[in-house]
Order: sequence, then structure tokens, then C-alpha cells
Amino acid sequence: MKKLIQEKTTILSDMLDGFVLANPENEVIADSVVVRKEKKDKGVALVSGGGSGHEPAHAGYVAQGMLDAAVCGEIFTSPTPDKILEAIKAVDTGDGVLLIIKNYAGDVMNFEMAQEMAEMEDIKVAKVIVRDDIAVEDEDMRRGVAGTVFVHKYAGYLAEQGDDLDTIVGKVEQLLEGMRTIGMALTPPLVPSTGQLGFDLAGDEIEVGIGIHGERGLKREIIKPVAKIAEELVQTLQKEVSSSEVIVMVNGMGGTPLSELNIAAKYINKTLADHDTAVVRWFVGDYMTSLDMQGFSLTLVPNHEEVLKALEAPTASKYFG
Amino acid sequence: MKKLIQEKTTILSDMLDGFVLANPENEVIADSVVVRKEKKDKGVALVSGGGSGHEPAHAGYVAQGMLDAAVCGEIFTSPTPDKILEAIKAVDTGDGVLLIIKNYAGDVMNFEMAQEMAEMEDIKVAKVIVRDDIAVEDEDMRRGVAGTVFVHKYAGYLAEQGDDLDTIVGKVEQLLEGMRTIGMALTPPLVPSTGQLGFDLAGDEIEVGIGIHGERGLKREIIKPVAKIAEELVQTLQKEVSSSEVIVMVNGMGGTPLSELNIAAKYINKTLADHDTAVVRWFVGDYMTSLDMQGFSLTLVPNHEEVLKALEAPTASKYFG
Repeated sequence: MKKLIQEKTTILSDMLDGFVLANPENEVIADSVVVRKEKKDKGVALVSGGGSGHEPAHAGYVAQGMLDAAVCGEIFTSPTPDKILEAIKAVDTGDGVLLIIKNYAGDVMNFEMAQEMAEMEDIKVAKVIVRDDIAVEDEDMRRGVAGTVFVHKYAGYLAEQGDDLDTIVGKVEQLLEGMRTIGMALTPPLVPSTGQLGFDLAGDEIEVGIGIHGERGLKREIIKPVAKIAEELVQTLQKEVSSSEVIVMVNGMGGTPLSELNIAAKYINKTLADHDTAVVRWFVGDYMTSLDMQGFSLTLVPNHEEVLKALEAPTASKYFG
Repeated sequence: MKKLIQEKTTILSDMLDGFVLANPENEVIADSVVVRKEKKDKGVALVSGGGSGHEPAHAGYVAQGMLDAAVCGEIFTSPTPDKILEAIKAVDTGDGVLLIIKNYAGDVMNFEMAQEMAEMEDIKVAKVIVRDDIAVEDEDMRRGVAGTVFVHKYAGYLAEQGDDLDTIVGKVEQLLEGMRTIGMALTPPLVPSTGQLGFDLAGDEIEVGIGIHGERGLKREIIKPVAKIAEELVQTLQKEVSSSEVIVMVNGMGGTPLSELNIAAKYINKTLADHDTAVVRWFVGDYMTSLDMQGFSLTLVPNHEEVLKALEAPTASKYFG
């Protein structure tokens, strides 16, 4: 296996040690929790996290205007409740803590367990569960994918402006109501901790409806021009996102050159225009990756004044913009 | 070939059309020149560019605090003198234009030809030629690689603070004097305009000393732990960079996950510390890529007060930070 690693067993600690070099305003506590060195002294604190392998998510979003803590599990592996509890305790200002959880069984279980433990220590905790991935039909089983980053940014903005915990939960739930994502892959990710590919894919095939942990998708197709791919993804999303004005994220999966994401954006824009849908703001880049997978996901959010303002507000994170 | 493209012949125009969607403060003129919509009305204007395939370079750096124009050639192909001339004429404020050229025969020839044409129209033009790639022994033949992005930022800062053309050239030449880069690859890039890989590499091999156009490197080795790779690259650079305080860029080649760049940074830091070298500032991310190549380059710059200040100064580019 060709990967830039030292040992399979030290991947997480090595990447976090490296992360704080370029992000010296953050630090790692409890081995795997990234927090700001200068913590907030009031307002709702935001905690997210999950398995690693999605960089810059989630540690890269620990910054003024976004998260207060990211709990980092091993590659594609949920962090344990005790680490999540450490994160909650480290950042709570007394005004409550919001857990932003991607909808995976392990994450939900462990974050909820940490929530109970924190509540036993009289910390006020609420949660939102992101399930933006339209590829899964059963709504309860829908996975949290790239849209989670919009939640980080929106909730971070609301916390900054002083909204209380219940208000933030209510507003984020509204965002979740309308936001949908679907992804596609040209290649599977190579998982450095196991040496295995996420799935097999032939030299001329793409996988549509993939997750961000090497899960196979909805279907396999022969590669086609990007305009056709854009059309397919947009049509799938528009079954549930009917707004005529949308905010769009074209999220690279980690191994996709920016040039190709830009080309995809052009044809997504064309398809949306053909369907009388205007884009009010684009986000194109690597936000929620799956190791070195090539491909992208497309997220549509119905335009909304406060959401747009929040997404455009400044943040100290160098990975969002 | 599995790539997110529409047609081989429209790659450049498609990627630029997509680029301006997420960068609406910029526009494309003369089919392939990216400029700011709001142009400066005084001060030295900065023009760079070259073949495409290095995104976010160079168009991503057209922003307040960095470039005024990027001339974008086809993938790995120098732009023509007439396009470069258009860029010069579009951004000249009367205070002179600096051309930032990567040292490749085609780029140097075409930019110099454009310089002559502009001078015939009484525009004051100067140039700097970046040749930071230590992998090539003959100094005149050294290629311009990731260090070019530091030149964009440094010169952009100097132009903002009102330095005149000669002063900027002098200061940039001093930066070039001390800055060195070396790169390595786990995989070659797949060139979408030809469908060809840049070079062949076996499943257990890495290539050290690669360029950013699919050029083969200095040597081929069996993959080894990243600490050993870091040691080899640092030692090579320290033959010519002897400063005990350095600014460091760990530049992803386009297909490398951020997690692996962070792991590489940790071990580079360790090796530098072992050689009594302190890092004053880290830049870790995709700055000057080679399509979807996996690997990274390492750039060392001797610490220098004004250079550091310039690199840390704000810029409107979302791709530098």
C-alpha cells in the first residue's frame, strides 16, 4: 500500500500532531479532541466529530465562527463516549452545548451516551442529527455527509450572534429539513488503516450514490460526460429540493483535482438553469472528503436569508470559504 | 479514462467557466485570462500564469493581496504571447507590471515575447523567473514549482504597500535566492487532455524529485515510512537552505488527502528539529498541484521578517492560507 504514513497504528495521532502545526490556534486534548486554545466564555458551544478520513472535516472547522471542538475517531470509526464527554466539558460555557452528529449508528449511539453523561453532570446538551444523503431511501437511515459542514457554519454563526441552544436547534432543524446531498465516485478510497479499497470499481465505471466511508452506492454505471452526471444528480436532488433559488456545494472527495470540480460546477449550473433554478452562492472544494476517493458530492440548500448570511459570514477556519 | 470532463477540447474553457461561479469577484477575458472585476487604479500590477493543471494556481490567486491576472494555458501548455499581452494591458495602472514566470522554456519565451510587445506600447514591464525546484542540478534549468505561490503572495503584499516595480523585483529576487523545493509522488498524474499517465510507477514505488507536469523525478524508490521520506527531502533541501529558522510549505499534488499531508508535516517538523531548524510558519494544503497526482512537495524559505509578514497578511484569495 502506498500511503504517506508512518505506522497503521499511529495514523490518528500523527495526523493530529501535524494538523496543529498549521493550525497553532488549536490544540489537541484527551489525545483526539481538537479545541480552540482561546475558548469562548459565553454562548452555545458546538461539538462535532466522528471517524477520521474526512479532512478538513471536522478538526479544520474548529475556529471562531464555526465549531468549538471536534472529536476525532480513528479512520472511519466513531469516537468513544468518554472522548466526546471530554470535548463537551472542555468547551461548555454554561450556556449549553450542541452536538452536531452525522447519522451513523455508532456516532449517534456514542454521542447520545456522552450527552447523557454530561447531563448527569448538569451540563445542558442538545443534539442535531444530520441526514442529508438522499442516496438512502429510508429517511431514518439517511447518512450525514457534506451538508454537515453547512450545519457547522450556520450553527457557528448563530452561536456567535448569541442565539440560545433551543433557538439554534430549531433553526438548524429547519435547514436540515430542506438540504439534500448525493455523491458519486470515479474511484474507491484506499483505507490506510486496513490497506483495503472501500469497494471495487472497473476501469470504465463510476459509482453513484456513494457514502463517505467507502460504502458502495445506489448503482454502477459506465463513465459518461460530466454534463450527464450533473443531470442525473440534479434530477435526483430535485425530487426533494424544489426551491427555485439554491445554495450549492460541489464537494471534492479528497482525490479530485479542483479543475474537475470546477468543470462539474459549470455543468451543474447549466442543468439547474435548465430546470429554472438559480444559484445564489457556490461552494466548490474539499469540505467533507473520503480519504483519497475521486469524485464529488452535490449539496442543494433552498435559499434562505439567514442561512445565506451565515454561510457568507467570516470565519477563522482556513478550510471553509 | 475516468475524469470529470465533458470533452477533451473544452477542458480549459469549462474549468474557467466553473471557476468564476465560485469566484464571482473575478472574470475571464480573452478566453483564458482571469482578472479581478474591480481592478486596482494604482500600484504595480502582478501577472502570472502558465499551463493549467495546477489548480488553485494560478487563477485562484487572482485576488486583493495577490495577483491581478492569471493567464491560463491549456493543460500543461504555456499560454501564447498575445494572451499574456492582453493580461498586461488589462491590469496595468501606469505604475508597471511584474510578470511572475515559472522557469519552463515555453513560459519564459512567451512571457518575454509579451513583455517586448507591451514595452513597444510603452508599458513598463519587469519579470522574475521562479526556479525553486532543487531536483534539477543545473541551476539555469531549475523549474518553478510550489514556491511560485509564495512569490505571488510576497509580491502581492509589496504591491499593496506601494513598493515600486524595481523595489519589488529586488525583494523578490532575494526571496528566490534562498527558497528551495523538492517533490515526491506516489502516483503519476493522469492527463485528461491526452488520456495518458505522466509516467509509469509500480504499485510499491515512489518517485522522488518529480516536477508538476508529469515529469519523471531524480530517482525511483520502494515506498517507505513517511519519516524516511521526510528525512530524505529535508536533507536534500538543507544542502542549499542552511537557515536555522524556516517557513515551510507542504504542498499537496492534487490527489493527496489532507490527512496524509498533515502526517508528512509532523515528520518533516521532527526531522527539521533534529537538524536544529525551527519552523516559524507552516502552510499545508494544495497550492500548486499536478492534476490528480498523489504526493507532495516541500518548500523551505529562510525566515525573513518582511516575507513572513507578507505571507501572513490577509488576502481575498480563499485558496491561500
